[in-house]
Amino acid sequence: MRAVDIILSKRDGRALSRDEIRFFVDGVTAGTLPDYQASALLMAILLRGMTAGETAWLTDAMVHSGVRVDLRDIPGVKVDKHSTGGVGDKTSLILAPLAAACGVPVPMMSGRGLGHTGGTLDKLEAIPGFRVDLTLEEMKAALADIGCAMIGQTAQIAPADKKLYALRDVTGTVESIPLISASIMSKKIAEGIDALVLDVKTGSGAFMKTEADSRRLAESLVAIGNASGVRTEAIITAMDAPLGHAVGNALEVIECIEVLKGGGPADLIAVSVELTARMLVLGGKAPDLAAAAAQVQRAIASGAGLERFRRIVEVQGGDPRVVDDYRRLPHVADRHLVSAARGGYVTGVDASLVGRASVALGAGRDRVEDAVDPAVGIMVIAKPGEAVREGAPVLELHYRDRARLDAAIRLTSQAITIGDEPPAPARLIVGEVR
Amino acid sequence: MRAVDIILSKRDGRALSRDEIRFFVDGVTAGTLPDYQASALLMAILLRGMTAGETAWLTDAMVHSGVRVDLRDIPGVKVDKHSTGGVGDKTSLILAPLAAACGVPVPMMSGRGLGHTGGTLDKLEAIPGFRVDLTLEEMKAALADIGCAMIGQTAQIAPADKKLYALRDVTGTVESIPLISASIMSKKIAEGIDALVLDVKTGSGAFMKTEADSRRLAESLVAIGNASGVRTEAIITAMDAPLGHAVGNALEVIECIEVLKGGGPADLIAVSVELTARMLVLGGKAPDLAAAAAQVQRAIASGAGLERFRRIVEVQGGDPRVVDDYRRLPHVADRHLVSAARGGYVTGVDASLVGRASVALGAGRDRVEDAVDPAVGIMVIAKPGEAVREGAPVLELHYRDRARLDAAIRLTSQAITIGDEPPAPARLIVGEVR
Repeated sequence: MRAVDIILSKRDGRALSRDEIRFFVDGVTAGTLPDYQASALLMAILLRGMTAGETAWLTDAMVHSGVRVDLRDIPGVKVDKHSTGGVGDKTSLILAPLAAACGVPVPMMSGRGLGHTGGTLDKLEAIPGFRVDLTLEEMKAALADIGCAMIGQTAQIAPADKKLYALRDVTGTVESIPLISASIMSKKIAEGIDALVLDVKTGSGAFMKTEADSRRLAESLVAIGNASGVRTEAIITAMDAPLGHAVGNALEVIECIEVLKGGGPADLIAVSVELTARMLVLGGKAPDLAAAAAQVQRAIASGAGLERFRRIVEVQGGDPRVVDDYRRLPHVADRHLVSAARGGYVTGVDASLVGRASVALGAGRDRVEDAVDPAVGIMVIAKPGEAVREGAPVLELHYRDRARLDAAIRLTSQAITIGDEPPAPARLIVGEVR
Repeated sequence: MRAVDIILSKRDGRALSRDEIRFFVDGVTAGTLPDYQASALLMAILLRGMTAGETAWLTDAMVHSGVRVDLRDIPGVKVDKHSTGGVGDKTSLILAPLAAACGVPVPMMSGRGLGHTGGTLDKLEAIPGFRVDLTLEEMKAALADIGCAMIGQTAQIAPADKKLYALRDVTGTVESIPLISASIMSKKIAEGIDALVLDVKTGSGAFMKTEADSRRLAESLVAIGNASGVRTEAIITAMDAPLGHAVGNALEVIECIEVLKGGGPADLIAVSVELTARMLVLGGKAPDLAAAAAQVQRAIASGAGLERFRRIVEVQGGDPRVVDDYRRLPHVADRHLVSAARGGYVTGVDASLVGRASVALGAGRDRVEDAVDPAVGIMVIAKPGEAVREGAPVLELHYRDRARLDAAIRLTSQAITIGDEPPAPARLIVGEVR
């Protein structure tokens, strides 16, 4: 088998065989396939597409590039959640303890933020002492003890994906549904979970800008999961404006704790409860979504979710006192208020611009190797639909560095749109795929 | 400017700017643009295409990656010919001395054979002592002395093309009309010629299989040449069967000498005279094609072309006695005859299979670094349209190595098709683009 023949096949629009896909992924993993051949094939895949069968084989080959974790000695239906990424998208820190408190084991493996979207690991690491690098044994111990562990992917999980993603990033081959699907699902399948709930974001602040594209991605992801023996379903949620108020690592941790205390913003609560309820149904802990949602609300009201969060922090080496004392989280002294340029109704808060402004402040990263500042970020004061007076604060920028603040101010200057009439109420959960 | 943004533009079907194309070619030439980005862009170009403007800019950037030879101190309109490659396609050795004998200076830079098609340099080097690596000064001296020089491209001619071609070869990005056009024309423009006649082959043994594709390529090449100040025209000629009888380096040299002596096969004479006549018209040595063709025929009949060939061989260090004594050319003692499986009319001699069989014998190369055997090759005894009896010889294989012969026999077994009726006469020169 020759790499160039595989490239020619895909270039000319033919479907690749399982063996050809395996040859490609194995070559990438072993480093025997040159990057220039891999990138030519990736571009051909992006422009020519892949069938559902090819995408499933690609995912499978990527799973087999590393280990598939064996969690069979942990009793129960292990369920994870994955989001395609958004701004202020912090539901993992809420739903993992809630699902665990309701009896569903959650072995969660997450990623870091890149570009304008945040990442769960960065948020968790805002908690002093919190370790996301548990060994597999420590992870299993945490699952047995408190029903939840929240860690990063180990090097053994789908190493082909790590190499391919780095290459895609610099060769313009990121935006391909088959490649995105295989990247996401190979890592999730390798975790050893039994079921998965996906939160596919849609809108200006999401990777997929249109509902149609988001649905195509959701369908691709769900098909791969189910074909691999992982029961998978997806909801499609709006990502035009940031989710909740907080954007930035420590700020988002606080907002999550607020939700677990029974407070927090309505949109964040709605998406978190919906995702947790689906995890409960898949985990066999509730007969239907309505019953599951009620169970989740009870876990919030009783404080069981909050208590489980405290335990997770403790078991993973973090300081659980942050739950009661937010000043133990990293924070900065300086705030800058962005004001409404006119009076009226907020018709939009551009998630992409707010996300990029947050990165400019230091809360995220443009390149994988960048460090993040856990303390800085943005509080969205006025959400879409709210009435504002001219000069009223709409964004609160928490900054450490003046030059970075200036960059963030420039980015936020176009982020808020204000009109004379209140906007039509936006749907938050716009669809499901199962 | 970032390479990934250029890739994204082309991937999404946008035309690149002149600066973007220059950035790409300069980066390839300097080695600052990684191969994996170059190959992703090449695949995007292949699948998305390029406008005529982009192709011209690409050609120009490739010309400027090296030197453009200055031949202004050689008087007259300097004319070259380029063929897109065929089997038994040996016209250069005929037309260069003929055009020079008719007063047109021919500074010919040629390539080597690759795959099933041969190359002029390999044929010339079959002549003992013949040097194709003249320096630029030696080339100019030869032009001044005898009006012709036949050499290989120096490293200073379009170095970007050399790098890009090596990458295209292993990344499935060869078959793109804009990339082929820029590759061919950058080298020709850099030679410093004033005019160019192209022989674009079409058919099963050619790079372009259909007349429509060949015409598109011809139009692209002619447009680039004229836009760059090189008067360019093209003829499209059939390449379903080998041209002439001889396939293989020394065998083809003999056939060319035969044509210059007034003999040789009709198809080879027709294409050679047509191309030379066009060179004469472009070179200002004849008012029209008919007059030019008559002049070329006279140069054959008078022996002026043969005499010029002898001088070229002499000036370039070769043994001119080969003209009169073919046994001074490399040759092998062993022949194998392939016979007609049935009686009837030869309806086809597959140029691609004959070419591959010739490579199998050692006359050509599969990889750039392979050596060629000048002595081996194939004589096509029965050409399309000829009547044959069952068992009559149709191909004569000149071989050195028994194992190579077996491979060649396997390839030739399907090469000859014989029918009950004579085939419709095939057109040899199927079109022109000017």
